[in-house]
Formats: sequence, C-alpha cells, structure tokens
Amino acid sequence: MGKVYGDIKSGNCYKVRLLLELLGEPYFWKHVDILAGETRTAAFLKMNPEGAIPVMEVLPGEFLVESNAILHFLGEGTPWLPARGMARAKVLQWQFFEQHNHEPFLGKARFIKVFLGLPEEMETEFKNKYEGGRKALEVMEAHLSQQRFFPGDSPSIADISLYAYTHLAHEAGQDLGDFPQVRRWCEEIAQLPGYIDIADKGRFGHYLDDET
Amino acid sequence: MGKVYGDIKSGNCYKVRLLLELLGEPYFWKHVDILAGETRTAAFLKMNPEGAIPVMEVLPGEFLVESNAILHFLGEGTPWLPARGMARAKVLQWQFFEQHNHEPFLGKARFIKVFLGLPEEMETEFKNKYEGGRKALEVMEAHLSQQRFFPGDSPSIADISLYAYTHLAHEAGQDLGDFPQVRRWCEEIAQLPGYIDIADKGRFGHYLDDET
Repeated sequence: MGKVYGDIKSGNCYKVRLLLELLGEPYFWKHVDILAGETRTAAFLKMNPEGAIPVMEVLPGEFLVESNAILHFLGEGTPWLPARGMARAKVLQWQFFEQHNHEPFLGKARFIKVFLGLPEEMETEFKNKYEGGRKALEVMEAHLSQQRFFPGDSPSIADISLYAYTHLAHEAGQDLGDFPQVRRWCEEIAQLPGYIDIADKGRFGHYLDDET
Repeated sequence: MGKVYGDIKSGNCYKVRLLLELLGEPYFWKHVDILAGETRTAAFLKMNPEGAIPVMEVLPGEFLVESNAILHFLGEGTPWLPARGMARAKVLQWQFFEQHNHEPFLGKARFIKVFLGLPEEMETEFKNKYEGGRKALEVMEAHLSQQRFFPGDSPSIADISLYAYTHLAHEAGQDLGDFPQVRRWCEEIAQLPGYIDIADKGRFGHYLDDET
C-alpha cells in the first residue's frame, strides 16, 4: 500500500488520488503544506529534490515523483494504460502536452488564485496565463470532436492527467462555454464508477493527519 | 521506416534523431522551417494541432507528436527503456521533469538565442530563463552525484531527453563549470557507439530535402 504526500486542493495530487479511487486501491495520504514551506525542508527535498508534490512512497524509502509518472506506475497492467504500440504512445503524447502546454497555464493560474488568493501583485501574471490556457483548451476541443477520450474510445491515464486542471478551468480564469466537447468529456469522466470530486476524500484513502 | 518532420538545429528534434542513430534505425527526415511559418499551415496543423516539431509519421497518415512520447515509441523493447516497474517509472519521472522544469528554461532560452538571434526586445525574457535553468541543472547535478545515468547504471531514453538541451546549455546562457557531474555525464553520452552531434546528419537518415 503506497503513501502519497500531497495536498487535497492540488490538481496534480488529485490526479493520483482520482486514479487510486477509480482503481479501488487503498493508499495512505500524508498532507504537505506548501505555503508553510513543507516542500522546502531538508527531509522533503531528500524525497523529491524538485521540492514539489505529489510524491509517492512506493515502498518504504523508495520515492516516485511527477504526477504523470506516478499514474503510469499505478496504471500499468490496468485498462487505464494500453499495453503497447501507438495507443500507449498516444497516452504519453497527451500527458507531455499536459505538462508542457496545459498545466503551466491552467494549473499555475489556478495556484495563484486558489492557493495564493490572487494577490494584486500577481494579477498580471494571472492574466498572462490566459492565452496559453485557452490555446490548450482549443487543442483539446478539436481532438474531442473526433474522439471520445484521450487517446481513444475508453478513458486512460491521459484523461485523468488532462481532467485535473481542465474541470477546474474556471478557477484559472477560463470559461468552458466555448468548448462543448470538453464539457461533454468532463461529464463523462465525472460519471465513471469510483469517481471522486477534488474535495472528496473518497473511500480508499487512509488520511494520516486525521489521527493526530 | 518512419518519417520525422523536424529541424536539425532543434533540441527536441535532435532527441529523436539521436535515438534513431543510436538504435541504427533508418528514417526519413523532412525539414520544417519554423520561422517561415511552416508549423502554422493548415496541412501541418492537421498532423499536429499543437503546431510544433518534431512530428513522427509512424505509418502513412498516422502521426505521433511530443519528442518524449516518440522516444518511448521507438525505445520500447530496446535496452533504452526498462520493460516495467520502478525503473520504467523513473524514466518517465525524469522525462516529465525535462518537459516541465528543464526545457521551458534551457530550451526556450536557446531558441531565443539560436533561432531568433537574441533580439534586443527579448533580452529580458532570455535573462528570466536563467534562474529556472540553473535550478534544473542543480537537480541534475545532485542526482548524477549518486547515479551514473538517469535512471540508473545504463543510459535510457530519459538521458537522451535531458542531454539535448543540457549539452547545449552554453547556448542558453548557462555555464556548466559548476556542474562537474553533469559534464561527466555529457562526456559519457558523447562516447556511446552511434552517437551523433546535433550538427551531424548521421548514418541512418534519408534527408528528403537534399534531393529537391
């Protein structure tokens, strides 16, 4: 049973929690307070030199970081990750798109708003994230007009990666009104058996901080 | 035999070319001129809605994009990509690190300098890329002090991903002087059988534009 170091409000952490719940796989959850500097301590940097969450302790003392890499580790051998060939490569294509062209805009803008409370001195940075975020949504809309999910007819870990910050796009200053296929796709994901909302602790998590 | 759409000067395209040469796998290469708008044409956007290179035409009309996804497709079943488990997940971890924390600084800064000629109005943006690029190199240096390659004792596609913009860091305004382990690792990669320099067309490429 793995242990996830994360924050329940974080979209990148939600990806991991959502897949664990969809798979029905029990997990420990250890809260990490970013704003209190808990990702900057020597102990944390030993787990993840990047100083970021989520971190998954796969075995005691053995750590995996980067949300999408964790999804691969958990999804291997399940219907959420095609076993080989082009289908598998397409999952990766969309996950690299997410980390390079999607999360840096939608995720970062949401962080400024939800975690930092959109302070006045960051309003310009928040607004500067709009264009890139909208472009990412346009790429998704075009794709979802042709295919039901990323990358094909059934949901994959790439859908989870993209869903996290897309369904919260309103918290990043975006409006999904112009993106009917993206909204359709979000609704389909929200109806999957085992789905949990980002604020929902789910059924399989063992939350360590609730006991202290 | 796959067909790569790319630019020989681009680090992201070099990743694909370097792996093909290391594997000894023949390929077609079709030059795409970014600055002439060739990634913005309707025909190109049909291949890749992101409007970026490299694009690999795996089979006629079947396209794969995102350099690191292409490396996975090509590396599957070879010693460059561990078959399963934590070793495989670690390859992905470092590739997502590359696309999220490394290439957006080192790759983008190099693009401003090498492709755009560092115009005066972009000097601030170029300088703003320095801190993030240096932080990425620090994370790499710490890791390479403990391990020979990413992720372990033998080179993987994660090494190729990170090598592309690291060994060209001087073109992004960085100095590898403070990073002895990164330099040692770069030298090891440059000595691998089949290695080609970014300016070298190699032995296995069939360059379509040379014949027009």
